[in-house]
Amino acid sequence: MKPKIIHDTWKIITEDTDFSLNEGYESIFSLGNGKMGHRGNFEEYFSGPSLQGTYIAGVYYPDKTKVGWWKNGYPEYFAKVINAPDWRGIKITIDGEKLDLYEVTLEDFRRELNMKHGYFAKQFVAILKSGKKVKVESIRLLSIVNDEIGLIKYVITPLNFSGNIEVLFDIDGDVMNRDANYGEKFWTEVSRGFDPFPYVVTETKKTFFHVANTFSAKFSSEGREIKPVKIARLESDKYVGLVYTLPVVENVPVEIYKYVSVTSSLYYEKGESLLNGAFDNLRYALDKGFEQLFSEHAQAWEEKWRDSDIVIEGDVAAQQGIRFNIFQLNQTYTGKDERLNIGPKGFTGEKYGGVTYWDTEAFCLPFYMSTSEPKVARNLVLYRYRHLEKAIENAQKLGFSGGAALYPMVTINGEECHNEWEITFEEIHRNGAIAYAIYNYVRYNNDPEYLAKYGLEVLIAISRFWAQRVNWSVPKQKYVMLGVTGPNEYENNVNNNWYTNYLAVWTLQYTIEVLEYVRDNYLNDYNRIVEKVNFDYDAEVNHWQDVIQNMYYPYDPERKVFLQQEAFLDKELKTVDEIPPEERPISQHWSWDRILRSCYIKQADVLQGLFFFEDHFDVETLRRNFEFYEPMTVHESSLSPSVYSIVASKIGKEEKAYELYLRTARLDLDDYNNEVHQGLHVTSMAGTWMSITYGFGGMRIKDNKISFAPFMPRHWKAFSFKIRFRQWLLKIWVDQSQVKITNESSTPIDLLLYDNDYTIEPGQTLVHNVEHVLN
Amino acid sequence: MKPKIIHDTWKIITEDTDFSLNEGYESIFSLGNGKMGHRGNFEEYFSGPSLQGTYIAGVYYPDKTKVGWWKNGYPEYFAKVINAPDWRGIKITIDGEKLDLYEVTLEDFRRELNMKHGYFAKQFVAILKSGKKVKVESIRLLSIVNDEIGLIKYVITPLNFSGNIEVLFDIDGDVMNRDANYGEKFWTEVSRGFDPFPYVVTETKKTFFHVANTFSAKFSSEGREIKPVKIARLESDKYVGLVYTLPVVENVPVEIYKYVSVTSSLYYEKGESLLNGAFDNLRYALDKGFEQLFSEHAQAWEEKWRDSDIVIEGDVAAQQGIRFNIFQLNQTYTGKDERLNIGPKGFTGEKYGGVTYWDTEAFCLPFYMSTSEPKVARNLVLYRYRHLEKAIENAQKLGFSGGAALYPMVTINGEECHNEWEITFEEIHRNGAIAYAIYNYVRYNNDPEYLAKYGLEVLIAISRFWAQRVNWSVPKQKYVMLGVTGPNEYENNVNNNWYTNYLAVWTLQYTIEVLEYVRDNYLNDYNRIVEKVNFDYDAEVNHWQDVIQNMYYPYDPERKVFLQQEAFLDKELKTVDEIPPEERPISQHWSWDRILRSCYIKQADVLQGLFFFEDHFDVETLRRNFEFYEPMTVHESSLSPSVYSIVASKIGKEEKAYELYLRTARLDLDDYNNEVHQGLHVTSMAGTWMSITYGFGGMRIKDNKISFAPFMPRHWKAFSFKIRFRQWLLKIWVDQSQVKITNESSTPIDLLLYDNDYTIEPGQTLVHNVEHVLN
Repeated sequence: MKPKIIHDTWKIITEDTDFSLNEGYESIFSLGNGKMGHRGNFEEYFSGPSLQGTYIAGVYYPDKTKVGWWKNGYPEYFAKVINAPDWRGIKITIDGEKLDLYEVTLEDFRRELNMKHGYFAKQFVAILKSGKKVKVESIRLLSIVNDEIGLIKYVITPLNFSGNIEVLFDIDGDVMNRDANYGEKFWTEVSRGFDPFPYVVTETKKTFFHVANTFSAKFSSEGREIKPVKIARLESDKYVGLVYTLPVVENVPVEIYKYVSVTSSLYYEKGESLLNGAFDNLRYALDKGFEQLFSEHAQAWEEKWRDSDIVIEGDVAAQQGIRFNIFQLNQTYTGKDERLNIGPKGFTGEKYGGVTYWDTEAFCLPFYMSTSEPKVARNLVLYRYRHLEKAIENAQKLGFSGGAALYPMVTINGEECHNEWEITFEEIHRNGAIAYAIYNYVRYNNDPEYLAKYGLEVLIAISRFWAQRVNWSVPKQKYVMLGVTGPNEYENNVNNNWYTNYLAVWTLQYTIEVLEYVRDNYLNDYNRIVEKVNFDYDAEVNHWQDVIQNMYYPYDPERKVFLQQEAFLDKELKTVDEIPPEERPISQHWSWDRILRSCYIKQADVLQGLFFFEDHFDVETLRRNFEFYEPMTVHESSLSPSVYSIVASKIGKEEKAYELYLRTARLDLDDYNNEVHQGLHVTSMAGTWMSITYGFGGMRIKDNKISFAPFMPRHWKAFSFKIRFRQWLLKIWVDQSQVKITNESSTPIDLLLYDNDYTIEPGQTLVHNVEHVLN
Repeated sequence: MKPKIIHDTWKIITEDTDFSLNEGYESIFSLGNGKMGHRGNFEEYFSGPSLQGTYIAGVYYPDKTKVGWWKNGYPEYFAKVINAPDWRGIKITIDGEKLDLYEVTLEDFRRELNMKHGYFAKQFVAILKSGKKVKVESIRLLSIVNDEIGLIKYVITPLNFSGNIEVLFDIDGDVMNRDANYGEKFWTEVSRGFDPFPYVVTETKKTFFHVANTFSAKFSSEGREIKPVKIARLESDKYVGLVYTLPVVENVPVEIYKYVSVTSSLYYEKGESLLNGAFDNLRYALDKGFEQLFSEHAQAWEEKWRDSDIVIEGDVAAQQGIRFNIFQLNQTYTGKDERLNIGPKGFTGEKYGGVTYWDTEAFCLPFYMSTSEPKVARNLVLYRYRHLEKAIENAQKLGFSGGAALYPMVTINGEECHNEWEITFEEIHRNGAIAYAIYNYVRYNNDPEYLAKYGLEVLIAISRFWAQRVNWSVPKQKYVMLGVTGPNEYENNVNNNWYTNYLAVWTLQYTIEVLEYVRDNYLNDYNRIVEKVNFDYDAEVNHWQDVIQNMYYPYDPERKVFLQQEAFLDKELKTVDEIPPEERPISQHWSWDRILRSCYIKQADVLQGLFFFEDHFDVETLRRNFEFYEPMTVHESSLSPSVYSIVASKIGKEEKAYELYLRTARLDLDDYNNEVHQGLHVTSMAGTWMSITYGFGGMRIKDNKISFAPFMPRHWKAFSFKIRFRQWLLKIWVDQSQVKITNESSTPIDLLLYDNDYTIEPGQTLVHNVEHVLN
């Protein structure tokens, strides 16, 4: 069963009342504003399948790990962003009967996510068991202008009766995570009350974050405020609620407003300050009123779209798909706070615990770099600088020394949280992705000062790790890297993963370059760093040079391809089309044993290296490797097809590039992998964005300029995308015959189009006629 | 801190009152009779460190597993023999003050395990806070004659007062496992009561085993039975107790007897039958009385020793060590019930959950084969035949087909219970050990009919597994076995583990031999099996032959050694003496990452193959491999040194053999590995036994005869051991100048001594003078 989404260019719409898919829809209709978010749970009572989820960025809990046999070096806990107090509730009771959307008969049911203006809307007519009929229309949003404020407008119309209805507004802090490893609740109550507004302050166990939730209600009808005839209080541990009894008249709509504020101890002193902050927000919101707040929020979303939209002409489903991705990325991370990062599921589910993976560096950074002001990307890169000390401790725990750093596979505070040796200890290419992100950020934003202030320290620590992680093989007379797991996690504990070896050597080379650059240009910083990290240039760089010159790379001289790892050719080489369709995805049908021993590739591995370092190889090399690995790749990570798609675009396999793009374009909306109920693939959405901009758009940085080489997927009429590059804002528009690049900024830009130099004046459009032949 | 054990040839004695080591002592003083067992917990109140443990063989619970990321093919549960109702309690209160051994002042404290007669004795003088002094002497045993009966004799003497004391006898079924994965209790109460005797019947959740515990008390003083002045009942969920108030007189000992019976639904119908069985046992025991039961039990132990003792002259510590091992092995498994097997910790602790590993086949089988009647070893081998169907299901779960079987790494009922992919799916050499055990049993007992009735079916299923588990490597033009873990678990997921490849090919060869033998000698059975398992001789055997002829074995042509796995030489090869002593054992000091990437070897791997198949190799080959691997082996599995010791004996490295023997000889008594608190290394005790019999004694089966080639460790004066071989009982006695072999049975035996043929008549002794030069 797949979600039934109505195609629309700006909205995600469903009229589906098959609630067996409800948890998937809840993921799809998630809202977020960078600081907090929640799944698209109903405001109403709902006794059907539902994963209730409210999340506050940075508020986490170190859940006890589950592990078969604990091994030295394993972390003791798994930090997760946890389910936070739930403030959505607007729960209706009519004559003692609950308006439970799972129990009533529904007509004209519709949920929609308005991406242009950033809200979730819902409407239905419900027929209760008593025969009473009500019509409901609601709007919900998390303000991106005032990011501690949530708003609900809820319009209810009795269609065949007059009388009283009861409306329960509540805050429920007595929540838990479905994946709480030992069924534990993570919150305790600090305080609760009703003055001046109903509130609950809760605290996480162990981490002692405080969170205040407060709400206020407004009711009106026919333009006039109305008063409840009765208000009753409900309270219990971590819970407050008010039951308003409202008089209603047949066919006369009543507007119900819930104003909510959520504050956390990340931004307030615990105690009065935190709670007063929430009350102040609430007063401010009540003062402005729903309509004004709504309009400011909608306006802010329009501005976000101005810098980040992709328009696809002639394909509504594709248009909806890419906007959904951009929308979710913008909901998840705003770059305001360098302590925050991007969990693979954003605010849309519990899986992966809201913690940070290498997805951020390899996939998300390019999106934020090109669609936000430079500070946003800088904060993402700085995040790892802030964790450098912990990464050094992490490496020490594993037996490394001398200031070597191993960044964690999974983290929220810099400490490793993942507990499988083959990942935690071996999937070390992540360390290289962090070095690459520094290079990528500095190159894109031309910010070499970042290297002197922050980057070099991180690079030295990572290079020190690589230099210790290799060892000299006597039989090979080369350096080897034993016992690693590459990005393709369907191979574990292999020797000489080509991508990891290549990335390690690149890191060493880049670090040497940066050392020299900083010494030549920022000598004070250079000296400061050398002293701080006790750097012995001669000894260390000499060893690095030795590793650079003598690294072993597995290679097949017959096929002239890089080998994903040593001994890869000992496997039985098969292609994906030999797998019976009913056995796909293999992760859901095959034993782990069978998967590991097969040749099948979960996600870009050698190809990840070709993507990062395409300039190092000629097109024929890219093509040979693509043609060898692509038929063996099952793409069972959402991060995979976008990388293959970009490389396919590069080597002129345009149909293949488009086919691969399609595998991620509507991954969650069409739920290809039967897992949207777990949350959205937020980080992979940035990969989809890259498939268009880097892939179809051929965007690169070359010679310190931005460069494009677009081609037009023939299934579309035209497409265009917006790019922020340093001080410039560009619009690139492509159809079968023309490429147009408009400089929407106030200074002229020098750029490359199909490797030719152009200068575009402010407000001007470069028009290029293409004669394009599809491969 | 290590246990302080007083050396004695027949007793394990400690006078240590440092209770920080108490959990270790509890392991050492464990009792068992094959059907049930318990740790050496005190009868008294004890508020200090203690792991209370009572276990009933075959009564298990499928505890929920803990696992980081569950993967397809993983089992859903981990079966463990669980902590059962505790019936030891004899808890004294004097004037309201509990006799708590952790709180009182102790004098003349002594615990001892009498191995000759199979009981645990304890004595002390306790000075209570009130100043009252009592002397206690107790004896506890689990009868091996009536294996559902436990007995305690408890003699208490008030040394400086007269008056009343209160004695609580109880059965506490409200117990839990310390390692219950989710803090769950596994037992529920079925019933409890006091008529005719106090009893509790409990049931395991999920598996629904029933266990009845009942007790009765007797009191006497100066030869006359005495009556309590008061008896009070205590009861609560899963708990019954009786508090007896006894009048005592200064300096007059009071004898207290606790008779206990424990029955389980493995042997009784649930309900009345189970409970009446316990009552009947109790009546029988009360009738016979403690002294008679004790004497029968002691006599039975003497008989066990008659067939299994090893005598070491001139080294009390060694004598104590080897007897402790033999004693624990005999306490753990008696071979009466083919449903039972041997957990690595026996009845002495919770670790490894009392479930079965390949330890049974590779280490324990030889001990029971040579010290018990043939039925005992046969039951061990039959255990796996009974699990064949489950082993086939297990292989199917992993994607194998056509009747291939993969026996579980860890099991209690035939289903896999272990949850680490690198073990569960990859440590498949266990399958070969099960085939080897069939060969070993049949060879030792000359029982070829076993092959026709049971063995061949198992061999075919295991061979089918190997035939599917290999694949053809194009670059090597050989069959390879990818993704395995050998016995050395400090390497995971390697390619072409030499031992596994060798064992697989041997299994295929042996299965073909057995097929032909059964066809030629038991044609009906042959036809029955071929039909039952749908065996296609031509197709299957042809493929097996192809694998046999074209298997790849990693080899170093320079050193002329077998390589533990492919690419082993890419590692940095170091010797154990390069590890700083404070970093040993590395499993407790190094990260798993560092261990995996090092060359260090946990336990015999290539050497395990040389041990199993020494006849396949010349002595020079054995020597070269031993000399290559031994210096890299850390022996951090208790199963390791014994194998190295036996091979060292074989190649004439007698000092080395003795040194390696010492590493296991008193492993638990001296707690080399700082882990005796977890329980005893019961299965490795069988390895120690082999170090003497197979190693120093040079015992082998050759040409269908038993063969010896003893040498004398120069640290001893002499040693001797008893061997049951088929219908014979032999005593082998060795000193520096002579070997004497006595035939203690009623028929003549043909045997080999130093490869010379001899016949020894019943009652006769062969005396052989040796001129032995130590290497």
